[in-house]
Amino acid sequence: MMNLYEVARFLEAHDNYEILTHAYPDGDTLGSGFALCMALQQKGKNARVITTNVPSKFLYLLNGVKHQVFEPDTIISADVAADGLLGSNTDAYLGKIDLCIDHHGSNTLTAKEKFVDRYASATCEIVYKLLNRMNVRITKEIADCLYTGISTDTGCFRYSNTNADTLRIAASLMELGCDTAAINKAMFETKSKEKIELERAVYDTIMYCADGKCAIIYTTLDMMKKLNIGDDEMEGLASIPRQIEGVLIGITMREKEGGFFKISVRTNGNINASDFCAKFGGGGHPAAAGCSIEGKLDDVRNKLIKAAEETL
Amino acid sequence: MMNLYEVARFLEAHDNYEILTHAYPDGDTLGSGFALCMALQQKGKNARVITTNVPSKFLYLLNGVKHQVFEPDTIISADVAADGLLGSNTDAYLGKIDLCIDHHGSNTLTAKEKFVDRYASATCEIVYKLLNRMNVRITKEIADCLYTGISTDTGCFRYSNTNADTLRIAASLMELGCDTAAINKAMFETKSKEKIELERAVYDTIMYCADGKCAIIYTTLDMMKKLNIGDDEMEGLASIPRQIEGVLIGITMREKEGGFFKISVRTNGNINASDFCAKFGGGGHPAAAGCSIEGKLDDVRNKLIKAAEETL
Repeated sequence: MMNLYEVARFLEAHDNYEILTHAYPDGDTLGSGFALCMALQQKGKNARVITTNVPSKFLYLLNGVKHQVFEPDTIISADVAADGLLGSNTDAYLGKIDLCIDHHGSNTLTAKEKFVDRYASATCEIVYKLLNRMNVRITKEIADCLYTGISTDTGCFRYSNTNADTLRIAASLMELGCDTAAINKAMFETKSKEKIELERAVYDTIMYCADGKCAIIYTTLDMMKKLNIGDDEMEGLASIPRQIEGVLIGITMREKEGGFFKISVRTNGNINASDFCAKFGGGGHPAAAGCSIEGKLDDVRNKLIKAAEETL
Repeated sequence: MMNLYEVARFLEAHDNYEILTHAYPDGDTLGSGFALCMALQQKGKNARVITTNVPSKFLYLLNGVKHQVFEPDTIISADVAADGLLGSNTDAYLGKIDLCIDHHGSNTLTAKEKFVDRYASATCEIVYKLLNRMNVRITKEIADCLYTGISTDTGCFRYSNTNADTLRIAASLMELGCDTAAINKAMFETKSKEKIELERAVYDTIMYCADGKCAIIYTTLDMMKKLNIGDDEMEGLASIPRQIEGVLIGITMREKEGGFFKISVRTNGNINASDFCAKFGGGGHPAAAGCSIEGKLDDVRNKLIKAAEETL
């Protein structure tokens, strides 16, 4: 494992960078990828970001990125925790990554060199420190990228991965011209009319069990079709049942094509979500995990109720 | 208007404090009130907070406050912007306030001395700076109070009143032992079952006008009675209509006893919420304001729709 100084020297010593992001890209992988890209370009290097797609709400992250034509020599990954997360870039890049920069303690990505800081709230927090070591001038555009990654990975400083460094870095990024109000509004304060309709429909599905300590919500393919809603809008649904006072296990069931449900489990207190999902062949983090269960709505829900009552 | 140094000298020179909070107390008035109280007690003074009530989710703010019996000599207010906000304390305290500490630029409270900093995100931000001037040791309990006020008034650092100072103060409060994860969970990630039912009912009331640029929701006394919900649970409702994509004016109508509606207006873009509410004799901030309108649901809503269509 490299230290941050060595990462800075590595980036200064090489050129012609391709920067990989993870599949289903989020604010942190895109923010750290594009920030690194602009920083390297500022240092006179060639660089581009390789991403499966950029959801429209993240398109502002590309402001300030120069389009450069070159033959790649050096492959970096930003916020990619495992080989399986390379998505459609797997065939072209697996095994060819020269340097992996990440904040997931569980990182298992195949890469020649690594810098993983599990105490960083976001990969963007690492990149901020790295750019300072490299004497990169943090422009407004770079600041917007870094703030986006930090705020999205911490739920705007709500989650317990937020530390004092996180808040101080965010303060500095504000002073560097980052448009925090616009970013926060776009990331956290905007719901499409369809999303509002979806939440309303999902509220109608809330069922409590285990004396109110477990809450289950669901979406069906029918609901999604009727509301004309895509998978993009599903983000955040899983946090609804856990938010309910007294609930220790919050379960979200999403019907998928092929006769099965994708299950997201979020827990409070000492309940282990990963153990819960392991009963159904899934896994994840202690407070957030997932699994898939085949069957009809009522049958799947009854299995989950039974498992919840056993756990609680 | 005093400066912060003079406020510190004032507090050191006097004794036997009663600290007033505003009616329908929120995290900032309670956090700044109890933080000041503990700070004055630490300085060897007598102090107590006078509040109409403390909602149960804020009871932890009282940890570390000593119960003292004394005859009051000095009356301070924390986060009280106007005489009308003294609520049930009006008769006993109006005109008797020695020092007003607040962050509302619109402050019109009757008080002998004032310190109002409109650039502070929260009154708790002012109190943090004040306690440093007074060489108060910021205990975990004081840090919990200050963080609560800052995080609740900034929507956990989302709103545009958040500045670099705000984030750095929050960083310092974390290092002073403030339990940010528990506070954020209680403030932002927990909803009572009744609140969930209320949101579900309110979603059913959404009406769009002005080509979808205005959204209006409402609650009635009947709804509140049927759901067995108190005013405590109404917090946060007002942010629902403004969140909807494309909405520039989000309006929340709450029916009150006495044949009138309390109106909360939240705006996006350049729309001035205070100007909008001034049409109905109300006022507030550029992006968040309020007023009261007498009449029946449909009549009041039609007036609001007309005003919105004129504005947009």
